[in-house]
Amino acid sequence: MRDQFVEQLDRMRYDLAELCSVTEAAIDRATHALLDTDLAAADRAADLSADIDIRARELDHRALTIIARQAPVAQDLRALIAGMHNIADLRRMGTLAGHVAEVARLHYPEPVVPYEVRGIIADMGTAATAQAAAAGEVLRTRDYVRALELIEADGRTDELLRTLFAATKSEDWLYGAASAVNVTLLGRFYERFCDHTVEISRRVIFVVTGELPDEP
Amino acid sequence: MRDQFVEQLDRMRYDLAELCSVTEAAIDRATHALLDTDLAAADRAADLSADIDIRARELDHRALTIIARQAPVAQDLRALIAGMHNIADLRRMGTLAGHVAEVARLHYPEPVVPYEVRGIIADMGTAATAQAAAAGEVLRTRDYVRALELIEADGRTDELLRTLFAATKSEDWLYGAASAVNVTLLGRFYERFCDHTVEISRRVIFVVTGELPDEP
Repeated sequence: MRDQFVEQLDRMRYDLAELCSVTEAAIDRATHALLDTDLAAADRAADLSADIDIRARELDHRALTIIARQAPVAQDLRALIAGMHNIADLRRMGTLAGHVAEVARLHYPEPVVPYEVRGIIADMGTAATAQAAAAGEVLRTRDYVRALELIEADGRTDELLRTLFAATKSEDWLYGAASAVNVTLLGRFYERFCDHTVEISRRVIFVVTGELPDEP
Repeated sequence: MRDQFVEQLDRMRYDLAELCSVTEAAIDRATHALLDTDLAAADRAADLSADIDIRARELDHRALTIIARQAPVAQDLRALIAGMHNIADLRRMGTLAGHVAEVARLHYPEPVVPYEVRGIIADMGTAATAQAAAAGEVLRTRDYVRALELIEADGRTDELLRTLFAATKSEDWLYGAASAVNVTLLGRFYERFCDHTVEISRRVIFVVTGELPDEP
């Protein structure tokens, strides 16, 4: 009985990490769609986003069933409750990746990101992909130090967003209001995507230690 | 024992509805700060946002403790798990109200919202306040019909956001890119705030019926 339960928990943990790697692929494809005006990549990101939604529902249902049937306590209960919150974060990450792809698709074949801020958006895309990869690793290994590193790394994303907003609000911005609106939304999508990886890492620390780390 | 448990659940439900009414006050004050360039209202919204955070943590901890100690099943378990997700939504609503107030504060004493879209932002503010009030009522009464009405009403907010984006992206937009960026972020904050009230309503329906309603 206990063995079966442990196996269920392990499988849940593995499937969560797996779901996280789908969000990684989704944001990677979305960024590619955006920066290379690649419609096939936008389609792929949309498909992955839909897939994340389906998997998330299934996992959520499974976690609830385990809690109802096994009445877990202490660390097991924390892991399952944290898991359900993580599922919600991963779903949202999938939705945000879908939003990025949708912006690319709406403007296709026009590029959305002006040359001047292309580097910043590319860096945000790279950061988002890397943070999703790191969150997957944190979910799989429950490595406390890696989780703290991820939380620390997120400061860089916030900095990129500030730089992006400063560029669009500067008097030197030459691309008009419509372009500024697009870039603002994109920046916000990436930043929120990364925020969710931080939330996941904080929750893994909570599962391991029983204490939530301070807000970054 | 059972009586005490029922009392704990009732109190949790009451406190969640109460927390929701704090988010209502926070977004109301934030909107006031924004549209009337009122610094005291911005301060009040920031205070309420911080208060929401503290209350949410306390409630979250309490829900986890009840699940661990009472090992609830069926509808009680659904209510507690849904409650923990609702707490996360209410926290986020508090943060978003804080973001709106922060935009007002950063530009004080300059007004942030250009005359042309003032009506749209005012309508979004009114909708957000009304939806928070309705979500509080749904949490308190678990009224299925009221929850469905709230989900329906949210279509109006999405429409307002589309109108707002169309205005900022139009060739007639006279207020420059910086202003477009502010307005875009504000619209997004309000729309996300309202989305969370929809999530709360969907979860209340889940608690009552055991089935999640379709995504709006």
